[in-house]
Amino acid sequence: MSIEPDDDALAAALLARQRRALAKAITLVESSRPDHRLRAQSLLDKLLPHTGKAYRIGISGVPGVGKSTFIEAFGMHLLAQGLRVAVLAVDPSSPLTGGSILGDKTRMERLSQQENAYIRPSPARGALGGVGHQSREAMLICEAAGYDIIIVETVGVGQSETAVAGMCDVFLLLQLPNAGDELQGIKKGILELADIVVYNKADIDPRAAAVAAGQMRAALHMLRPASPHWQMQVIQASASTGTGIEEIWATLQNYRKTMQHLGAFEERRKHQAQTWMWQLVEAGLQERFRNHDAVRAALPQALQQAADGTTNPATLATLLLDAFRH
Amino acid sequence: MSIEPDDDALAAALLARQRRALAKAITLVESSRPDHRLRAQSLLDKLLPHTGKAYRIGISGVPGVGKSTFIEAFGMHLLAQGLRVAVLAVDPSSPLTGGSILGDKTRMERLSQQENAYIRPSPARGALGGVGHQSREAMLICEAAGYDIIIVETVGVGQSETAVAGMCDVFLLLQLPNAGDELQGIKKGILELADIVVYNKADIDPRAAAVAAGQMRAALHMLRPASPHWQMQVIQASASTGTGIEEIWATLQNYRKTMQHLGAFEERRKHQAQTWMWQLVEAGLQERFRNHDAVRAALPQALQQAADGTTNPATLATLLLDAFRH
Repeated sequence: MSIEPDDDALAAALLARQRRALAKAITLVESSRPDHRLRAQSLLDKLLPHTGKAYRIGISGVPGVGKSTFIEAFGMHLLAQGLRVAVLAVDPSSPLTGGSILGDKTRMERLSQQENAYIRPSPARGALGGVGHQSREAMLICEAAGYDIIIVETVGVGQSETAVAGMCDVFLLLQLPNAGDELQGIKKGILELADIVVYNKADIDPRAAAVAAGQMRAALHMLRPASPHWQMQVIQASASTGTGIEEIWATLQNYRKTMQHLGAFEERRKHQAQTWMWQLVEAGLQERFRNHDAVRAALPQALQQAADGTTNPATLATLLLDAFRH
Repeated sequence: MSIEPDDDALAAALLARQRRALAKAITLVESSRPDHRLRAQSLLDKLLPHTGKAYRIGISGVPGVGKSTFIEAFGMHLLAQGLRVAVLAVDPSSPLTGGSILGDKTRMERLSQQENAYIRPSPARGALGGVGHQSREAMLICEAAGYDIIIVETVGVGQSETAVAGMCDVFLLLQLPNAGDELQGIKKGILELADIVVYNKADIDPRAAAVAAGQMRAALHMLRPASPHWQMQVIQASASTGTGIEEIWATLQNYRKTMQHLGAFEERRKHQAQTWMWQLVEAGLQERFRNHDAVRAALPQALQQAADGTTNPATLATLLLDAFRH
């Protein structure tokens, strides 16, 4: 990787909105090399005063729901309002399964060619801090580079949604109006994270879309919303015809205005930053624990004994914690 | 607390199903005194070979849904089948808010007078291992004392449900058919934990109960079930008239049979035991971290800086982990 050692120059170029500096800075925060991590932290400390002004929008939906087409149409609409748009991806897929297609530029051809748009495919998974850590830092870098809207894209499989909802101001869930159970099934807890549910491809079968939206409204009625100040909205859209895109942007603006007025917008961000810090502390503690020689020696047998039911899990936990102590 | 030091005698009396020994053993595992913790672990190690034979049934629902009346009617039905029944409570309420009413014997007057029933109110919250740790150990003790069915009761507020679903073989959610939004609202993720949803008090307004059950079935259709092998069931019941109780027990037996046949029953328990061990390890690590002098000195400022956005959370996490190291 060619990252120049002059981080002051990199920070300056980034704040001057140079696209090459942006790509370089994100590559730096995505790296797990210890010396890169140190430099990334120093760079982020420099940039931090210039962050926080963007609207952070999380978008999720299972494969096939039309996420790229939607983000492209939505992004073009935002550009037409004079806004600068960055698209990042949080990808739960493991390197073993062939890696990521999220944030792929070839899927958002029009958007990727716009001067005021920046699309960043999802990074390879780093060890530190679990899903989304790198994307959080990439988000801060995009904010410092003057992007007004950060779209964080992910795919509907649970862990990554929680991470994305935990770094965004608002969370939008894309659904298909006429999918089989396979596609329609929403993983644990994802629905409750959503502030806005969008039925995409509503033009293909408008009646099915209306029925699905109605069923979803009834289902949402049974769940508490992500925020006590906001009733989850259900909107029908078609990214290919542009239907609903304006309504979605109006709803997102209304959401931000409402939450800012109530102080809930800032409160959510403060809480997110503290939670993020704790998550990194916990990840760091567990990393040390798992890499500790005596723990590594004792762990396989402890897991086996827990599964067999031959030893009480509390006894095993005490044994492992004692091994860590010495 | 008067706990006799002769734990071999206590274990023997417990296995001989002496009720006084049972109460004493649970009091021991509920204690957070270090010497009691040691004795509790030694007792549990002795009892462990005699555990695992009960059917562990988690039951949740918001206050007002009629949990005690339901558990009493359900418990009496089980006793009539010749089964021995223990009722435990996992209570998320803090001592500050006035403590617990869960598992209160005065709420289950008939059941509490039966020789083959044992009702244990929820313990005061101990520090170790978070919600449910003591109830897990109390559950093992009831199993060693020969109870066939362990009912673990909780109230619908999120954290405790996850704990209860994590210690039970099956999770049953009680709902009211005709409640306002306040009562109807289900906290994040609870619905997805349920294997069976019961509309209680269905006799009061049968039409409303049927409508609510239908809406719930439609809502469940949109969520993935807790198990890939089981489609969540929705049942209407009335604890006061006894309607539905037999159907619920038949469904629970069918659930157990299906899961055992697939090997999923044992698999779930193995996974629960390992998860429990990890939770205790994590709780232990965090306890040490938070009690570490240098960490305690640095923490308030770190939390403030994270909230203010003046320092990157990753930088703060590294700072705290370094403080822990030295």
